[in-house]
Amino acid sequence: MNSTRDIDALIEMMAKLPGLGPRSARRAVLHLIRKRELLLMPLADQMQRVAATARECENCGNVGTTELCDICTAEKRANGQICVVEDVADLWAMERSQVFKGRYHVLGGTLSALDQIGPEQLRIPKLIDRIDTEQITEVILAVGATVDGQTTAHYIADQLEGRVRLTSLAQGVPIGGELDYLDDGTITAALNARKDI
Amino acid sequence: MNSTRDIDALIEMMAKLPGLGPRSARRAVLHLIRKRELLLMPLADQMQRVAATARECENCGNVGTTELCDICTAEKRANGQICVVEDVADLWAMERSQVFKGRYHVLGGTLSALDQIGPEQLRIPKLIDRIDTEQITEVILAVGATVDGQTTAHYIADQLEGRVRLTSLAQGVPIGGELDYLDDGTITAALNARKDI
Ligand SMILES: [Zn+2]
Ligand SMILES: [Zn+2]
Repeated sequence: MNSTRDIDALIEMMAKLPGLGPRSARRAVLHLIRKRELLLMPLADQMQRVAATARECENCGNVGTTELCDICTAEKRANGQICVVEDVADLWAMERSQVFKGRYHVLGGTLSALDQIGPEQLRIPKLIDRIDTEQITEVILAVGATVDGQTTAHYIADQLEGRVRLTSLAQGVPIGGELDYLDDGTITAALNARKDI
Repeated sequence: MNSTRDIDALIEMMAKLPGLGPRSARRAVLHLIRKRELLLMPLADQMQRVAATARECENCGNVGTTELCDICTAEKRANGQICVVEDVADLWAMERSQVFKGRYHVLGGTLSALDQIGPEQLRIPKLIDRIDTEQITEVILAVGATVDGQTTAHYIADQLEGRVRLTSLAQGVPIGGELDYLDDGTITAALNARKDI
């Protein structure tokens, strides 16, 4: 169908989003076309706006629209504590629980020999820098309870041993569980019951 | 978080799409930001393009980018047969099966007393017009086997009785379908329509 090739192309792009397959992409595009002025046009504009302004925080790896993110520049947040997470979705999950008032460090993944992801790819050197420059006294390793997550936690713990208090989320993180799947209460319980490593 | 309000707004819009909740919208937006040049920018452009060109076919209700859609104007398709579907997603599903070579008519829903959807809202008058103008001999009522779908089918059948051959899709066990997964109504229909081997 020739005159629908723009629509087909849009469906193909939408189907690449995580959580959307071809079928839900088709449904979503039909919905967008039906709600052209109410949804499709504003959504296209908003995507363009985010594409133009979204960037990674140079300090912690969070996403925002400024060189340093809102959390890194917030005066009301506690200094001295850094919560290390694998990705921005995990940071957002922590923020939704509203229990942690310190700063974050987003690794951008986990160490993985298989995928050739070493400390440099994970912003670990930057984390080590921050210990001194921000006078950090505690690093909470809030990485997933997966094999790669735990390998990453141990690597970071080795690097920082003796320089800061090292803790990890304890209760409530299920084996193989990812932070972003957890409810706020579980995250709160896990943070409050954090243990020294 | 102030500087992320554009990102939050994008997540909120994405969460309104069918099949995406808040969580998958967050995942999708993070994925888009990570793939800014490869995915976010082209997707925003493509949405803008579709928003500017997509329209409903004036004859059948299909979506396309022209006054009459590709199916209505295709010379190679058979005249005389119209397949009536509830929405464009159903038309696309029929087209993927590549078995129907006639024309379509998209109702845009089903009759519903509760939602105050009458024949006028469903393009039924236009369907009745087409019987004469396109010399239709058969109308295939490919609407859903729901209460509203069947009410709609009966209404249309009443209007067209004696003027065309009226048919509906056979009900039964889907290819590869396991009995254990089917609802009782489907099994009943399949049994009642059983054929000699
Ligand atoms: Zn930051
Ligand atoms: Zn058409």
